[in-house]
Amino acid sequence: MTEPGGAAGRVSQANAAAIRHVLDATPVLAGIARARDVVPGMADDLLLHAGPPITWDGMSGPVRGAMIGAMLYERWAATAGDAVRIAESGRIRFEPCHAHAAVGPMAGIVSPSMPVYVVENAAGGTRAYATLNEGYGKVLRFGAYDDDVLARLRWIEGTLAPVLGRALELMGGLDLRTLVAQALQMGDEGHNRNRAASALIGRLLAPHVVRTGASTDAQHDVFRYLAETDLAALNPIMAACKATMDAAHGMAGSTLVTAMARNGTEFGIRVSGLGDRWFTGPAEVPRGLYFPGFSGDDANPDVGDSTITETAGIGAFAMAAAPAVVRFVSGTARDALTSTLEMYEITLAENPAFGIAALDFRGTPTGIDVRKVVRTGILPRINTGIAHREPGVGQIGAGLVRPPRICFERALRALAEELET
Amino acid sequence: MTEPGGAAGRVSQANAAAIRHVLDATPVLAGIARARDVVPGMADDLLLHAGPPITWDGMSGPVRGAMIGAMLYERWAATAGDAVRIAESGRIRFEPCHAHAAVGPMAGIVSPSMPVYVVENAAGGTRAYATLNEGYGKVLRFGAYDDDVLARLRWIEGTLAPVLGRALELMGGLDLRTLVAQALQMGDEGHNRNRAASALIGRLLAPHVVRTGASTDAQHDVFRYLAETDLAALNPIMAACKATMDAAHGMAGSTLVTAMARNGTEFGIRVSGLGDRWFTGPAEVPRGLYFPGFSGDDANPDVGDSTITETAGIGAFAMAAAPAVVRFVSGTARDALTSTLEMYEITLAENPAFGIAALDFRGTPTGIDVRKVVRTGILPRINTGIAHREPGVGQIGAGLVRPPRICFERALRALAEELET
Repeated sequence: MTEPGGAAGRVSQANAAAIRHVLDATPVLAGIARARDVVPGMADDLLLHAGPPITWDGMSGPVRGAMIGAMLYERWAATAGDAVRIAESGRIRFEPCHAHAAVGPMAGIVSPSMPVYVVENAAGGTRAYATLNEGYGKVLRFGAYDDDVLARLRWIEGTLAPVLGRALELMGGLDLRTLVAQALQMGDEGHNRNRAASALIGRLLAPHVVRTGASTDAQHDVFRYLAETDLAALNPIMAACKATMDAAHGMAGSTLVTAMARNGTEFGIRVSGLGDRWFTGPAEVPRGLYFPGFSGDDANPDVGDSTITETAGIGAFAMAAAPAVVRFVSGTARDALTSTLEMYEITLAENPAFGIAALDFRGTPTGIDVRKVVRTGILPRINTGIAHREPGVGQIGAGLVRPPRICFERALRALAEELET
Repeated sequence: MTEPGGAAGRVSQANAAAIRHVLDATPVLAGIARARDVVPGMADDLLLHAGPPITWDGMSGPVRGAMIGAMLYERWAATAGDAVRIAESGRIRFEPCHAHAAVGPMAGIVSPSMPVYVVENAAGGTRAYATLNEGYGKVLRFGAYDDDVLARLRWIEGTLAPVLGRALELMGGLDLRTLVAQALQMGDEGHNRNRAASALIGRLLAPHVVRTGASTDAQHDVFRYLAETDLAALNPIMAACKATMDAAHGMAGSTLVTAMARNGTEFGIRVSGLGDRWFTGPAEVPRGLYFPGFSGDDANPDVGDSTITETAGIGAFAMAAAPAVVRFVSGTARDALTSTLEMYEITLAENPAFGIAALDFRGTPTGIDVRKVVRTGILPRINTGIAHREPGVGQIGAGLVRPPRICFERALRALAEELET
């Protein structure tokens, strides 16, 4: 047995404090602003991306495609060729969203002119940011960058963001903790499936949208976007998870995982007690269901910051709430239950705010403990979309993946070194 | 063994034809109209009510209260006292909604001026009608009739119905079969819980609501109603079930139950092969969860046409899709599964359009067979709201109930007599 005052005691105390921040978080969707104006450290020579740090040379196809698209969108480049030359020249910097209080699904690009959701976690004193979901088909986040993609991004900037932003202002903010709690009773797990949360956001905002003063056509198009985009809620929920986990980050001695993210080449984790270091390993190809005409051979390795949902105790960790999702991997309803049950083995707490009806309202397994992952050998489960490996193609499927074990082993070694000093 | 050409063979053939109509139904929410203009046989001396036929003398408190409210709403009476005198005078007639292609939750009153949803089942050549849900608190359907109740009914008539009706027209109708299928994957069972279906209706209609030409204030109020009324979808779904079951009604020899309904005093069923006869027994008091300050002593016996949902294979029959509902009776998630599993024992088919994710997308148990109920002794399960026994009080809880056994025994005896002739 280790003494309470020993290393194990210090870890327990640090983890108790860290998980308290996770459970007590009060993320509210406060509004929408331009990234340049609100994202900490955003600059006009900077593009943010999902996952741990990566250079242009190391980027996979879809992330490069999305970077090209962002440079065209910002009008830094007039052609894809120009954009590649700019990227190769070193004139612009690439940094992780996670280093700037932001998160992005798939390639996860945030450029200075993009509108972002602003999520405030007053309880934890944190803010986080995420772009607006583009919808389906050929979209920037899957590495597409043709004219349709850019036109859609400009519509988001010129119409969707102002209307939703003004509606949020009139509403006085939208409580994302309650939203997620309700959505988990409506078949969502908050990552791959967000139909309920998206519908609920729509109905909460609607009375305010009609008072924004926007034209009837603009309102019509915004409501059509909300009616068609089952993933509309993913991005604000990701920002809510980021604001939640950032509040628990930086507690000396804590073994709590505060970020899991993929840049399309590497999978990385960050740990509360280990500051801003990333512990990485090679990203794997998800196992899942492919759209007609595609297979695993076309798939890019795992990519995106959306694993912040699992990090915060929803997504695949709440699979028991969303049995329809297991269809992506030809699983059964029982698999959905056991997926969630397994995650209790590697987490620090159950979140009473997020009860799962199918488990008699047991709270979702919350807060991955690096020690438990290494000790049990159970790796976190992750739901995810699958991108084509070539830039410009887009989404080709959805499925499940686990992080590489080495990330957790490296983090645990670093924690042991910290505790020895 | 009975010969295929014998009575059992004839019943099987009739049931196969009847259940085909149920599974093939295509209910569409086509629009909104005034009851006087569309409900078959509606007249200016007629009030419709839930359940089997009943006289004023036999009516329970909440049904009388709702009748009083309807007479005030129609301006047939200026005071509750006047309304009672009119009711006692015999100058107006009381008939079941079910006799007029209509259904109504709880007291289920339809009066000539009320707006009604129009649901068309093109596959079955049927139409059905239901009033617009009033929301919560003191409402006519629970027997309340004060000024607030009447003001809300006039708002429904003057604002909600015209705006939603015009939006439905612009939309070209709303597919209720798809809506229910989606809602069953989102924690609804379509009777006590309709949050998902209501949110989905809201988001489908929203792009059209803004093009109705209604004032901003009217649109705001309509969207607020949709945001606050988790039962908004109940009434159109009930009408969809009625249009579905009416298509299967009147098939000689069929033992399929085509209606179960309560008038607050008696529970009644109708059977496909037995025409317009009702087979009744005394309505029971539901077992459930009461609002603070109320108990079973305050409860009215079971009331309402909303059991048309169970009759059509959703509601309590789809409980496995809605584990959150079992909280009303302090049940467990397992109880939700077994509730649905039990109903397979007394039904004729599984509806592939309504897959339940928690049962690996097995279709909901659909089409109650009178023979199976009597043979197994298993009575249909029903989810329901609970009304106060005094007029004017309103809802005091929600829970579960079963029909009296005698309804099914009487129907089976009548079927036997029919088959002998």
